[in-house]
Amino acid sequence: MGRVVVIGGGPAGLAAATSAAELGADVVLVEQESFLGGTPIREHYASITPKMESAEEAIGRRVAAVEAHPRIEVLTGSRVTALRGEVGSFQLQVEGPKSQELRCGAVVVATGFQHFDPGRETQMYGYYEFPDVLALQDLEAMLKAGQVVRPSNGQPPRRLCFIQCVGSRDRRIGNEYCSKVCCGVASKEAIEVREQLPDCEVFIFYIDMRMYGYWESQIYWPAQEKHHVQYVKGIVSEVLPKGDQLLVRGEDTTLGRPMELTMDMVVLSVGMEPSPGTREMARVLGIAQNKYGFIEAADPPLDTVSTSRPGIFAAGAALGPADLEDSVSTGAAAGSRAVVAAASQPVVTG
Amino acid sequence: MGRVVVIGGGPAGLAAATSAAELGADVVLVEQESFLGGTPIREHYASITPKMESAEEAIGRRVAAVEAHPRIEVLTGSRVTALRGEVGSFQLQVEGPKSQELRCGAVVVATGFQHFDPGRETQMYGYYEFPDVLALQDLEAMLKAGQVVRPSNGQPPRRLCFIQCVGSRDRRIGNEYCSKVCCGVASKEAIEVREQLPDCEVFIFYIDMRMYGYWESQIYWPAQEKHHVQYVKGIVSEVLPKGDQLLVRGEDTTLGRPMELTMDMVVLSVGMEPSPGTREMARVLGIAQNKYGFIEAADPPLDTVSTSRPGIFAAGAALGPADLEDSVSTGAAAGSRAVVAAASQPVVTG
Repeated sequence: MGRVVVIGGGPAGLAAATSAAELGADVVLVEQESFLGGTPIREHYASITPKMESAEEAIGRRVAAVEAHPRIEVLTGSRVTALRGEVGSFQLQVEGPKSQELRCGAVVVATGFQHFDPGRETQMYGYYEFPDVLALQDLEAMLKAGQVVRPSNGQPPRRLCFIQCVGSRDRRIGNEYCSKVCCGVASKEAIEVREQLPDCEVFIFYIDMRMYGYWESQIYWPAQEKHHVQYVKGIVSEVLPKGDQLLVRGEDTTLGRPMELTMDMVVLSVGMEPSPGTREMARVLGIAQNKYGFIEAADPPLDTVSTSRPGIFAAGAALGPADLEDSVSTGAAAGSRAVVAAASQPVVTG
Repeated sequence: MGRVVVIGGGPAGLAAATSAAELGADVVLVEQESFLGGTPIREHYASITPKMESAEEAIGRRVAAVEAHPRIEVLTGSRVTALRGEVGSFQLQVEGPKSQELRCGAVVVATGFQHFDPGRETQMYGYYEFPDVLALQDLEAMLKAGQVVRPSNGQPPRRLCFIQCVGSRDRRIGNEYCSKVCCGVASKEAIEVREQLPDCEVFIFYIDMRMYGYWESQIYWPAQEKHHVQYVKGIVSEVLPKGDQLLVRGEDTTLGRPMELTMDMVVLSVGMEPSPGTREMARVLGIAQNKYGFIEAADPPLDTVSTSRPGIFAAGAALGPADLEDSVSTGAAAGSRAVVAAASQPVVTG
């Protein structure tokens, strides 16, 4: 059975590697960081829905299973720099502590996303100007540490708001797509803030609350009814300093009038963009990207993991905005497809 | 390698069967209908996003691949009525034209959803009273036939509206969840109506437009900008007859005032409920359901296809609201997991 190389050790890559190895393939998992687990681990995510389990523990179990699997070799601190050959007979150049040319039959790209940089926003939210303006992942790390405090003074906030769609649904910056998970993540964090700081009022300013599927009943309703998170349909146009607080200015769309609220902390619900690794792997592996730089699925919607090049599959947020369920489902699907492709006869060339 | 039985021949079941067979397993696909393809075929869906390809053709290619696969046996007009044994060594009773006890190592349940019955709604939309009140799937069939006409008089409508969240996000009927796809499907159908009937005005009354991920740029923006579909954030409380038309009454949430609009045709965006087959298979196979009757994923979010019983996996809308991409990803993942489980040693019992 041909060897499968998985590039990227986040949730999708872990699922792909596990899937392929359980099917009997030898797997090499190449990860540029020194650790596995991907963005949730690197960015210190707190808990994950629906069970509100520790992200570190839940993903840690998947990492441990991969590290313990006899058919998976993990190369951390490593990057793929070149690809030659065809499906069934690729040669992949890996640079790192154990630089080598790897022979393999198929490849899974699971190089994920990066959080939108709110310094690149066109609206004026002051992420780099005001210390109490954070992004979703900054608050995740505070929640994980159990230390939600204003960076400006070390005190817990008494009024905190989330601003949705920062870097998403925004044509001016070229990100027309919806990043899919930010409504759910912000609402989850809002619940956690209310649990850790019961005296803190929490607002979420949104365009549409995209709490699809079970998130509606698992997160959105409890956030409102049990945890009293206040959802305001509105557009925030700017965040300004006001004494030692922040003034949030915009329009309440439902009431149809301008709004001005004073906050201690503002959390920007930043969207997903392709990670540098996703853009780089698309180039190195010679696979098509869409106009946003994500890897393009070759035949949607009934094939979610094939790319433009036979034998190269993609999974998770490398393909575009994805939740954890999307990532592990496409990861497992891509791992399985790679096993089949790796066993195929190499195309005779030249 | 142990045999895998897949129950249900819709998009998820087709993906599961293909995945398992390509990995070398012998697969039996059990389908209660006389044909494969599932709800999109039975209900005559028109086209599927993002390429607006004919559903019949796109799904037909998957059906043809399954029917032609040497390792897949298809049993149509058949139902599973009993299960004995354990993972690696199940005996499954199948009733149909070829009634038999099937030995298999693992099972994939892909028994899907049914459209919410709008006669069970608590709001007064008159689905069974007024001929020009339709449901999403009724309009799909009209679009597929290229014959969008008012059932009452056979004339093309000049004003048509969609009412979102019929049977979803509704605690009174016990469906608190969001059905995930209806915003996208209604918007797709709205575009198709505008293409087939350029003189017909089209409105969509919604709570939140849940156009997650690429649907935002692929469907929602073109619907508004290119096809001039009119989105109105509002709650419709009732549909009444008005001469030979329909009066839609409710509240425009953005304008904060009551609205009354006259329509020729009203389309109810009905949500997803577990199909009778999903409820029945949960009982026959002895796997846990959630409170809505969908099959409960045993360990979300990092395992999307395991059920409460080892060796039984689930995929697609049997697990809850799912789009086509969800269905094929979980289908392929479940097929692959089933192959691994089927090869496991049977548990020694009794």
